[in-house]
This record gives sequence, structure tokens and C-alpha cells, in this order.
Amino acid sequence: MPGVPGRTSPEWHLVDEWMGTLADLGGAAGLLGWDRETLMPPQGAEGRARVLGTLAAMRHRELVREDAGEAIAALREDGHLDDDARAMLRLAGRERDRALRVPEALVRELSEACSRCVSAWAEARAADDFGAYAGPLRTVVALKRREAEAIGVGDEPYDALLDEFEPDARVADLEPIFAELRERLTPLVQEASAHEPAHLPPREWAEDGQMALAHEIGHLVGFDESAGVIARSAHPFTGSPHRGDVRFTTRLATDNPIGNISAVMHELGHALYEQGFPGEVVRTPLYDAPSLGAHESQSRFWENQIGRTQAFWEVLEPAMRRLFPRAMPGIDPSLLHRAARVVRPSLIRVEADEVTYNLHIVLRFELELALIRGDLDVDELPGAFSDGMERLLGIRPPTDADGVMQDIHWADGLVGYFPTYTLGNLYAAQLAEAADLELGGVEHAVAEGRLLEILAFMRERVHRHGARMPTRELMRRATGPELSADALVAHLERAYVAHHH
Amino acid sequence: MPGVPGRTSPEWHLVDEWMGTLADLGGAAGLLGWDRETLMPPQGAEGRARVLGTLAAMRHRELVREDAGEAIAALREDGHLDDDARAMLRLAGRERDRALRVPEALVRELSEACSRCVSAWAEARAADDFGAYAGPLRTVVALKRREAEAIGVGDEPYDALLDEFEPDARVADLEPIFAELRERLTPLVQEASAHEPAHLPPREWAEDGQMALAHEIGHLVGFDESAGVIARSAHPFTGSPHRGDVRFTTRLATDNPIGNISAVMHELGHALYEQGFPGEVVRTPLYDAPSLGAHESQSRFWENQIGRTQAFWEVLEPAMRRLFPRAMPGIDPSLLHRAARVVRPSLIRVEADEVTYNLHIVLRFELELALIRGDLDVDELPGAFSDGMERLLGIRPPTDADGVMQDIHWADGLVGYFPTYTLGNLYAAQLAEAADLELGGVEHAVAEGRLLEILAFMRERVHRHGARMPTRELMRRATGPELSADALVAHLERAYVAHHH
Repeated sequence: MPGVPGRTSPEWHLVDEWMGTLADLGGAAGLLGWDRETLMPPQGAEGRARVLGTLAAMRHRELVREDAGEAIAALREDGHLDDDARAMLRLAGRERDRALRVPEALVRELSEACSRCVSAWAEARAADDFGAYAGPLRTVVALKRREAEAIGVGDEPYDALLDEFEPDARVADLEPIFAELRERLTPLVQEASAHEPAHLPPREWAEDGQMALAHEIGHLVGFDESAGVIARSAHPFTGSPHRGDVRFTTRLATDNPIGNISAVMHELGHALYEQGFPGEVVRTPLYDAPSLGAHESQSRFWENQIGRTQAFWEVLEPAMRRLFPRAMPGIDPSLLHRAARVVRPSLIRVEADEVTYNLHIVLRFELELALIRGDLDVDELPGAFSDGMERLLGIRPPTDADGVMQDIHWADGLVGYFPTYTLGNLYAAQLAEAADLELGGVEHAVAEGRLLEILAFMRERVHRHGARMPTRELMRRATGPELSADALVAHLERAYVAHHH
Repeated sequence: MPGVPGRTSPEWHLVDEWMGTLADLGGAAGLLGWDRETLMPPQGAEGRARVLGTLAAMRHRELVREDAGEAIAALREDGHLDDDARAMLRLAGRERDRALRVPEALVRELSEACSRCVSAWAEARAADDFGAYAGPLRTVVALKRREAEAIGVGDEPYDALLDEFEPDARVADLEPIFAELRERLTPLVQEASAHEPAHLPPREWAEDGQMALAHEIGHLVGFDESAGVIARSAHPFTGSPHRGDVRFTTRLATDNPIGNISAVMHELGHALYEQGFPGEVVRTPLYDAPSLGAHESQSRFWENQIGRTQAFWEVLEPAMRRLFPRAMPGIDPSLLHRAARVVRPSLIRVEADEVTYNLHIVLRFELELALIRGDLDVDELPGAFSDGMERLLGIRPPTDADGVMQDIHWADGLVGYFPTYTLGNLYAAQLAEAADLELGGVEHAVAEGRLLEILAFMRERVHRHGARMPTRELMRRATGPELSADALVAHLERAYVAHHH
């Protein structure tokens, strides 16, 4: 125990500086990654991979510093520390313990391999040439397996990877939930996709107007652009190099405005969460979400629970008429709403409807589990992916570009990440039930233009807590019940098939 | 001496990795700085300052690593090392020795103070409120003085700051050259500004067209956008986070196209140099210019020796007619050329003509020397600046925004940097004389559209050498004579007053 108690001790001072340095190095890498996806010229790929590799290695070296470990151990005996400080020690110590098991050389190898693989993926996808991606991906998978074995958390290597994104989640816990969802979703997909889908008439939706609409939607739901940036990239994502700078991207298709709007609502969920982290714990592990599932609960809430209501499209209508004077005539909010809620087995996960979506996740979960277990080789991946699409959704991708290569995740070393999307959907549905009670109906609040009240609800129940509580506890306090498939399935039945009963 | 000779020794391996890490950390900071000036939202300033402070501290800590110092010392005894390796050791060792004298805490303080001061400068400039800038600037000046004293190179503190940008240059050497220039420029300014200046008629020059023109000019002179980015910022600058990614910015005024074109030509000079560094020494101190004066020789060459010729405006004419169909009628290359060559004492350094330009530098050199010597307080700076403008150029700035606050340099801790602009002008004029001989007249080459031949000349004489030689040696080999004011004064007389004789 330190000689001086609480936050005045030299041990605390050391840990505090150390946590700040770790946050800063992670933030710097975040900005270089953002720039890689949005602005970097193609010839910069090799140099960028080197710089990101160096930053990852420096952060790793900082993370495992011995004096930080000694200070954490001493501070754990200090009864004078406040709750926040103890939570910081728990999370920082946990990451440090994890990292101590992975040698610095492997960290650097992984970072460089992922940067190269992301570039290879982008080129291979453009050329629909899986062969050009297979080599770099095989390297990434082999390194991830080595990483998982070095960490040694859980019952099998995959658990160690999953744990990085969703602390304490295990394959054994996910499988029953995924099984229940699959069982209950299959009849739901059939029923919801039985009738003729609504389509927008063929029109040109100008890119300028779509970007302007992204900014207007952001303003509407409370995104603060004096502390944020909106841009474009191949795959939409959200990031923040540090407090006061939260960035998200969207992607545009000129033949349909809905993909952009859904992507914007999704990323806004992430971005609003980041803008709502508690300022008093900035540059510490508490200035974060407790897990990716928690983070995803926010994006899914705004994308599906708000963005697919009839009221939302009514709120958006005036801006759309103003920004798309040539495309909007003859299109009303009801048609937009129905077009945004078409349920059809489809190829692209990020464009999938919310009913079929979790089946895309089931497939990716199965495949990455098999890759890490060594039951599947990278060369077999395109076939296994297409077979799985046929089995789960009844359709076969015509190209690998629109099949196994549609996602950036594996290229970037994000294995164990996909399941958190489904966890996000489950939590989002539970949060919507709680918001219904609090606000007298979420859709009613949207219809009355009370979008900032919805944000205030999320700030209060979720954002302001940062990573102070584990996800399950945070969500139990925010919503009431324990995690289950009930709220999501009930929501989908209400939204997509209730009127058939 | 190492047990294994040459580049196979463990000592060389260590130094090689160490140099790469230093390059990568510098590159990461470079990208965060670029982003700060081009894209970062205002609320990000504080967090960005922290991240840049941490990167500077990490780089400093890496730079002074003891094992690197020991390896360098051992390798200096190794007779088997090639010339490039020995040059790397000389430059890396030199930077390390410099850094060892500056404590890490001071490095971090300086970086954070500069980031904050840059933000304060931008806001204070927009509000024309020097008072809001004085405090942060006083902090920067005090820290620079402490840094200079810690380094202890040269005869006085300012020498130590100058040496960082222009190795081996000293106040005592600069003063005679500046005195000669001032003496020879005074009659030249009077003669060149005696007649009525040419003006473009009042027209609107669209921003889109100006950015498109920037890209076309880049293409024309050989800038490779597959390894580069062009953007906008308040103050034009060039940077490169790593090989394959060279970026420059310009600034636009819709009432006149010439400022943008001059800025583009200037920054292109820097950017072409960066794209021409020798790939075989990437991630070492040789993948650089030997000094800022050398770097500036390139920007001044393209801006003034190429960009102010009649032939250049003739080459540009078709693109300008295409991009500005409403602004160009009645404007011909001769008028553009004369408008780009108006000599008039004026307020803004970056918009000054090439005849008065060096008098702006004389003023800044005097003021920053006085600040560092302690002969001038920050509060006295606006008055001293305005008095100096009146004394040297006969005009008094109506606002501090267009006076003492027009440059970012001091805010960013760049003290000792301004004199390198004049060195760049001197070297650029000498390079133009050498290019005249080699290409049968530079303007003739421009007129024939042989701009890539001019680039090839620079690649051969300057770019491909990187930082292998000190600037004076590099320039002596490239141009023949020793550094003097002769070539610059002869060029200005030829271009601006010869026809009066």
C-alpha cells in the first residue's frame, strides 16, 4: 500500500500519466486509421502500415511497463481510493495482464499484417479476386491464432479473441442465444418476406444532397459538429482520436438514398455515445464503452428502433424535399418507410434488413470460429461462405466481392467482433422497451420531434456511465431484465408481422 | 567496434530499427498536425495538443535511448560501413546529442504549449485580438529560450534555435548577407514599384475551379497524386507522414486567382522534393532535405523562377479558360503575368512580391532575435512589428491580424525558421542559373512545355541526394558558386528593372 493514500500518492500519479499516454497513443493510431480509409493516397499503404505498426508496438511497450504493474498492485491495497479510481485500476490492469501474455514482436507483426491485408482486401475486392487477398488473410489468421493461444483466456482460442471485444463473453454462452434467435427468426423471415416489397421509383439521388442530408440528420439527433467530422469511406465506421473529435463516415449510392440514411443513423448511434462519455474520466479506460456490444446497442437503437419508424421518415421529409427536388416528387414518407423496411434475404450484411441481419452474423460467427479452430482453411473460405449463405438465407453470392470479401473485419484482424453486432441488437431492443416507458412511446416522441429527449434518455441511462460497469450490469440497470432474445423478437414481430395476425 | 562488421552487426540492426521508429513517430505527429489544420473540429484542440505532446515525449524518449547511443559510438569505429550508413550515424547522432540536452518534460511542455498557442493564434487572428494570443505566445517564447539554453550550440541562444532548421548557420554569418541584400534591394524596390501596377478586372474566381486548377498544375509539373493529397488550410503548408504520402495545402480567395496559383507552385516545390527523396534510405535521416534552406530553394524555384515567367502563364492559359469561363474573357497571359509581378510594399508576407519579400524576413529575423535575447517583450511585439513595417517597407498594418499575427510560425514554436526562407531564395536563384545552362534557358523550356525536364534536372542535382551532403556542399555541387546574394539580385534586376535601363 502506498505511503500517501488515494489520488495523492506517487503510485497514482504514475498510473494516471500511464493511462493518459496509452489513451493518446491509441488515439493517434485511430486518426491514422481514419485517414487511411478516407484520404490516404494508394502509394501510402506500405508506409502507413509501418507507422501503425510502430505505434502499436510503442503502446504495447508502454502497456507492459513494470513500474505501472507495481503501482497498480500497490494501489489495489489502498482503501482510500474512490470508486472511479478502483474501476480504472481494474480495467487498466486487465488490459495490461492480457498484453503481458503477447510478445511485442507479435503485436508489431499483427499490426503490420493487418494494415497490409486491409490494402490487399480493398484492391482484391475491387478486382473481385479473392486469390490476391488469400495470402495476406492467411497471415492474419495465423497471427490471430498465435495471439489467442498466448492470451489463453476461456475454454478455447476463440474465447480469448471474443473477450477482447466483449469482456467475459464466451462461445458457450453465445451458442444458445444464437440458436434461439435462429429458431425464432426463420419463420419470421418467411412471414415478413412473403409479400411484395415496396420500391422507390428509379431516380438519381445526388451525392451532394446525400452528404448535406447526413449533416442535417446529425443535427436533428444531437450530434455536435463543433466536436465532430462526417466523411465518406468504402465501409462506414466511427472513431475518435480524443475527446472533442468524434468522426464517422457513410457511403453513398446515387440510385437509392436509404442505404446512406441507415448508415448515418447507425454511425450516429456510435458517435453520440462517444460524444456522451463522462468528461471527468477523460484519458482513462472509463472514457469508453464497457464492450462493443454496448457500443453497438447505441448504433442499432438509432438505426432500427428510431430510423425505421414511420415517424422518422415524416420528420425527414421536408429536408429531403428541399435537398432532392428532382427525386422526391411522387415519393411520400409512407413509401420511404416501407422501402426502408423491406425484408428479403440479401447479399450484403451492412445493407441487410433487421430481420435477416442476425443470420448474416450467425454465418460469420461459424466461419471465423472454424478458421481459428483450424477446421477451415482460408482457401476454402469463399466456398464455405457461399454455401452458408445458401443454407441460412437461400441465396448464393454471384461474386466473392459481394460475398466473402464484403466486410473489412477479418482483413483488419477483427476476429471475434461479429457476434457483438447481435448482442447490440438484443440490447437495443431492450433499451427501446425502457425508452417506450420513459418517454410515452419512442415513435410518439419521434413524431413530436422530441429527438433530443431520446438522446437525453440515452445520456442518462448509458452514455454518462462510460465503462464504469460491465455491460450486463449497465444494461440491467438501464432496461430492467437480464439479456435475452425476447425483446428483439417481440420488436421484430410487432414491426414486421403483427399486422398479419 | 562491433564483432561483426558493416550492416550485418547487431549494433547496426539496433540503430536501423531505432531510426525507423523515430521516422514513424515523427510521421504520425505530422499527420495529426496536418489534420489539425485541415479537418479537426474546434473542440478537438485540447485533446489534439495532449496527443501531440505524448508523441513528442515518446519520440524524445526513443531518441535518447542509451543503447542507441552506445551502438552509434561502436559503429563509428567500424571501417566496413558504407558511406550512406556513416552519413546516417552522423545525422542521427547529431539529433540525439541535441536532444540529450533537452529534458523530456520540457519537450512535452513545448509541444503542448505550441498546440494550444496555434489554436489561440487562429482564434485571436479571426477576432483581431492580439491580447488573446499574447499569453500563450509568451509561454512559447519562454520555453524556446529554455530550450536554446539547454542545447547551448553557437555563440548565443538564438544560434541554437537556428541550427535546428539550418544546421551550422549562425547569426554572425547571416547578418552580412542580410545587410547586403537590404542595401541592394532598397533601390530595386523603389525602381520596380515606381510605375502603375497591372490589375485583373474585378471578377469572381470560383473555389471549385481554383482547386481543380491546383490539381492540374500539380499534374503539369510532375506531382504524383497516387502518392499525394492536395487540400485547403488557413496557411498553406506541405508535409509527409511517410513515403508514398506527400500532402500540401493552398488557400483560396475568390476575388483573385493568383494567390492560390503562387501558393500551389510554392508548395509543389516542397512536395516534388519530398516525392523525389531516395527510396533506398527511407525511414532514415537521409530521407530528408539537409536543411530548411535547401527545402525552400525548391519552393522558391517553382514559385518565382518558373511561376512568374510569361511562359508559365501561357502554358496555364487553356486550363484557366476552361475552368473559369466567366472570369477569363478579356484576360490574356500577358496581363496575368504582369499582375503576378506587381512590386509594391504590402502587408502580408506570403502574398508579397519576390522583390520586397526578403524585407519581410529581415523584420521577422530582427524581432525573433530580440524576443529570444530578451530585448523585446511579447506585449511590445505588435508595436515593434508595425514600426518595423513602416521603417522597412513604408507601410503600417491597419490591424494586428494582418500584421504581427499573420504567420503561424511563432505560435507553433518555429523560432529561427524565417531566415531559411531568404536562404531558399538565394539558392533558388543559383539553381535557376544552373538550369538555364543545362536546359538552354528555363523560360524557353517552360514555353516548350518541357516542365518534366525541369523536374528531372532537380531530381538529378538535388532531390536524389536526400540529406547525404550538407546544404552548402549540395548547392555548390548543384550550381557551381558558393552562396552569395549575386544570383538573386541579378535575377530580380533582370526580371523587374532591366527594361528601364
